[in-house]
Amino acid sequence: MKLYGHPMSTCTRKVLTTLAEKGHEAEFVLVDLMKGETKQPANLARQPFGQVPTLEDDGFVLYESRAIIRYLDEKLSGPKLTPSEIREHARMEQWISVETSDFTPPAMTIILNNLFGRMQGKTPDADAVSKAREKVGATLDVLDAALATKDFLAGGQFSLADICYMPYIEYLFAAESGDLVTKRAHAGAWWKRISERPSWKKATGK
Amino acid sequence: MKLYGHPMSTCTRKVLTTLAEKGHEAEFVLVDLMKGETKQPANLARQPFGQVPTLEDDGFVLYESRAIIRYLDEKLSGPKLTPSEIREHARMEQWISVETSDFTPPAMTIILNNLFGRMQGKTPDADAVSKAREKVGATLDVLDAALATKDFLAGGQFSLADICYMPYIEYLFAAESGDLVTKRAHAGAWWKRISERPSWKKATGK
Repeated sequence: MKLYGHPMSTCTRKVLTTLAEKGHEAEFVLVDLMKGETKQPANLARQPFGQVPTLEDDGFVLYESRAIIRYLDEKLSGPKLTPSEIREHARMEQWISVETSDFTPPAMTIILNNLFGRMQGKTPDADAVSKAREKVGATLDVLDAALATKDFLAGGQFSLADICYMPYIEYLFAAESGDLVTKRAHAGAWWKRISERPSWKKATGK
Repeated sequence: MKLYGHPMSTCTRKVLTTLAEKGHEAEFVLVDLMKGETKQPANLARQPFGQVPTLEDDGFVLYESRAIIRYLDEKLSGPKLTPSEIREHARMEQWISVETSDFTPPAMTIILNNLFGRMQGKTPDADAVSKAREKVGATLDVLDAALATKDFLAGGQFSLADICYMPYIEYLFAAESGDLVTKRAHAGAWWKRISERPSWKKATGK
């Protein structure tokens, strides 16, 4: 298997964490975001939206991180990251949908303004950041309530749903917004629990 | 089973289509969007984001349409809407991710401006619509290429991925943007193929 990606990319990190949880490795092929390689013909041929990551498995080319991690979990040996119980499985899917639709868009607004924008010398749009912080906070309120009675989003078992939130939360801390997580007791404890996993440390080079 | 929703809601329609494909019905409980009932305590108790739909199945409360349709497909008898072959399954997930992240946000910008906004007497934001049409067109180019060699998004079999696009495409036609679909030969033929299914006619009251 080959994984085309970038080690700083949030979506690449979901795949790297999943591989580490499963105890597998893929050959890593760097697509250099900083040099604009995602938009060059070689990457566009495998990922028509000009993004990373893409997985190549014996001729099968798959993109979209949330599809790749489900595929890896189904295909590879190692601990299952999808609950076998139907209601816990459904709950995992619910939280992945919330992540994609409600959590990540405003989280990325914060991250692009306060972290990556600043790295490029841009002044953050304070109003956009403020509104995005409210939205992220509202979603974290819902997660916090759900996590009051269980260790992980799907239930008692670490799953793909937890993995989906991790790269964005990591960057929220670097974007002066880790308080949104830590000031919510259950969400804060959950983040501590999942970010201490060896898979996450491996995926993020810690 | 009870389905809390609204017959005009895109996400409710995904669930109704899935139920019809499986040959099942749920008791339909109207949450009246027009009267703001999604934001009232009764709905917030089951859906903390104040949206529809929510499924209630013998005490199990589940929201997020893309989670509900996967749950129904796993639980109910009837034709499978998820391919059993691992690569086709992965492809289904890829297209659902593209729908959620790339297709639906700009499609909803067009729909909110040209359809629902107009119904409320608002003037569409022509610049926002124009940019959104470009984004929807770019995603449809990718779908069109994929559909050149197969009848449905996941492969030879109608799946949850097709269902996820249907409510938004239906409203694009009512929002003066059906041309984005029909002018692309393979995407246009696919839309004709899937929108003629009895399940879709039932879900949309045709």
